[in-house]
Amino acid sequence: MSTRENNLYIGIILEGAKIRTALIDSTGNVLLEQTDPTSQRKTEELTSQLIELIQTFKQRAPQYGQLVAAGVGVPGLINLKTHKIEVLPNLPQISTTTLCDDIMQATGMQVIFDNDANLGAYGEWQCGVAQGYQNVIYVTIGTGIGSGIILDGQMWRGTTGFAGELGHTTINVDGIECACGNIGCLETVASGPNIVRRMQQRLYRDRTSSLTRFFMPRDREMTHEDIVQAAISGDELAQVVFERTGHYLGIALGGLINLLNPEMVIFGGSIMAVGNILLKPIIAETKQRAFGPCFDNCQIVAAQLGPLSGVIGAAILARDSFK
Amino acid sequence: MSTRENNLYIGIILEGAKIRTALIDSTGNVLLEQTDPTSQRKTEELTSQLIELIQTFKQRAPQYGQLVAAGVGVPGLINLKTHKIEVLPNLPQISTTTLCDDIMQATGMQVIFDNDANLGAYGEWQCGVAQGYQNVIYVTIGTGIGSGIILDGQMWRGTTGFAGELGHTTINVDGIECACGNIGCLETVASGPNIVRRMQQRLYRDRTSSLTRFFMPRDREMTHEDIVQAAISGDELAQVVFERTGHYLGIALGGLINLLNPEMVIFGGSIMAVGNILLKPIIAETKQRAFGPCFDNCQIVAAQLGPLSGVIGAAILARDSFK
Repeated sequence: MSTRENNLYIGIILEGAKIRTALIDSTGNVLLEQTDPTSQRKTEELTSQLIELIQTFKQRAPQYGQLVAAGVGVPGLINLKTHKIEVLPNLPQISTTTLCDDIMQATGMQVIFDNDANLGAYGEWQCGVAQGYQNVIYVTIGTGIGSGIILDGQMWRGTTGFAGELGHTTINVDGIECACGNIGCLETVASGPNIVRRMQQRLYRDRTSSLTRFFMPRDREMTHEDIVQAAISGDELAQVVFERTGHYLGIALGGLINLLNPEMVIFGGSIMAVGNILLKPIIAETKQRAFGPCFDNCQIVAAQLGPLSGVIGAAILARDSFK
Repeated sequence: MSTRENNLYIGIILEGAKIRTALIDSTGNVLLEQTDPTSQRKTEELTSQLIELIQTFKQRAPQYGQLVAAGVGVPGLINLKTHKIEVLPNLPQISTTTLCDDIMQATGMQVIFDNDANLGAYGEWQCGVAQGYQNVIYVTIGTGIGSGIILDGQMWRGTTGFAGELGHTTINVDGIECACGNIGCLETVASGPNIVRRMQQRLYRDRTSSLTRFFMPRDREMTHEDIVQAAISGDELAQVVFERTGHYLGIALGGLINLLNPEMVIFGGSIMAVGNILLKPIIAETKQRAFGPCFDNCQIVAAQLGPLSGVIGAAILARDSFK
């Protein structure tokens, strides 16, 4: 292992609104980290931004060790056979793209691409709360809702690489339209932007919340981070909104546990900064909906690596893919 | 292989209302088959019935070859570690039981127990439509709705053996109570008894159906087989009820395909005698709800072995378990 000790890896997670980049050593320690807004408008802009980030980290790496490879996570479907991104539901303007090839060519680096939630799962499994477990599902809640599935000690990516789209489970047959084209997906009520949407609607009835400063006239657009902070600070309406979000997530999780009988489900992503305010109602609803023996054999926990599950997973997958 | 050529196996599937038993050779051919009503009232009665069935088939086997072992499928959760049945949602009076041990002791046979849907999946995978496939989900629709999952060329039974309970996915948050304790499960609208329930309710409004003979005054209780036959014979109301059933199944299937990205989903069980009248609306609804790339990479088909998927799977699993 001594040859690997100084090896470094770049982990990048393309979230809906921002890009998180980190320089990580071979045991998962984060040496450098930065977050930037995503260039969302055009594929070329996003490609340039990703190339630039890799080049920047490449220049900064030598003082820490030997940079070997990079891992990049994107919020969408990556075809395992063609290595192309097929769908990015929350970045539709960047849906058809030669992103992967262009980045590898321009940087001259070994780069592996995967779904962002798969990488979050990989990070928690290799370096976080799921170390030593065999059957784990990691659910990330941010701009979208995705999941990464580990079964029998292996990532389950599906026949063509598309597995894990838990956010696009129908939980309300007659619900609202989803960016994926379906109606009533879990994501339409429980993702970051939809938590904001629901909160804005509740404000019309309840003006006692600390968040009314985002009602008309607004001082700026509300973000899901604002609601997370308000809930943590004791804002009752924000807590109610998360309780109902947990109810929705628990409905989907009950079905998931009945279907796959995992030993652990991990919740991560930026929304999980709210912690038990969301986790407890998730667990309560899941208990109502899953078979007792399935529920009793499954731990439901928060990500140990917090918002870094994905970047650490991306770097560690790069470590394990390019030896 | 010549030593295996004359080997025989008993396959038994305990359905909600009946038990199907078959004598099967090592390549999956059915030599003898019979169906009996289930002794549902007491655990002891059911145990005696299963023991008697095995003894009867044991006596009849020698004229065909050498009886080696039996496989028994039950509609519930079997703990992989303890080999005990933990839950039989549709036979609650037989929920806690020493069934497995009692049968093995009384018959002196090698008997393997598994979930009925797992065995249907195994049958179709080894001897039916899914031969040669790696990622397959078999869904059985009868008294209940279960599924068997094959991933990467292996049965996925879950951490403790409970995986595959697709029938207990919530598809209507505010739906009706399910025998499993949840609300709005797929099974509450799309299983055999619930198709009967829905049909009986529709009859109140539409008296043109051939099934009105089951309305007051009834000549006997309606069964799902009656509705299957009516639909096949062109009864419009029966066809409408199956179209709506397909809508419900497609909602769950869309989520399942998004989550697991299988290459094939097979529909079997007694309800599937209705064929395309149900399969077509399932496919249509799934297409509306799944990601295009997930849907396009997944065949949705009817079971090739029809109502025999389970018994053949049970026998073939016994073949593969006791060598």
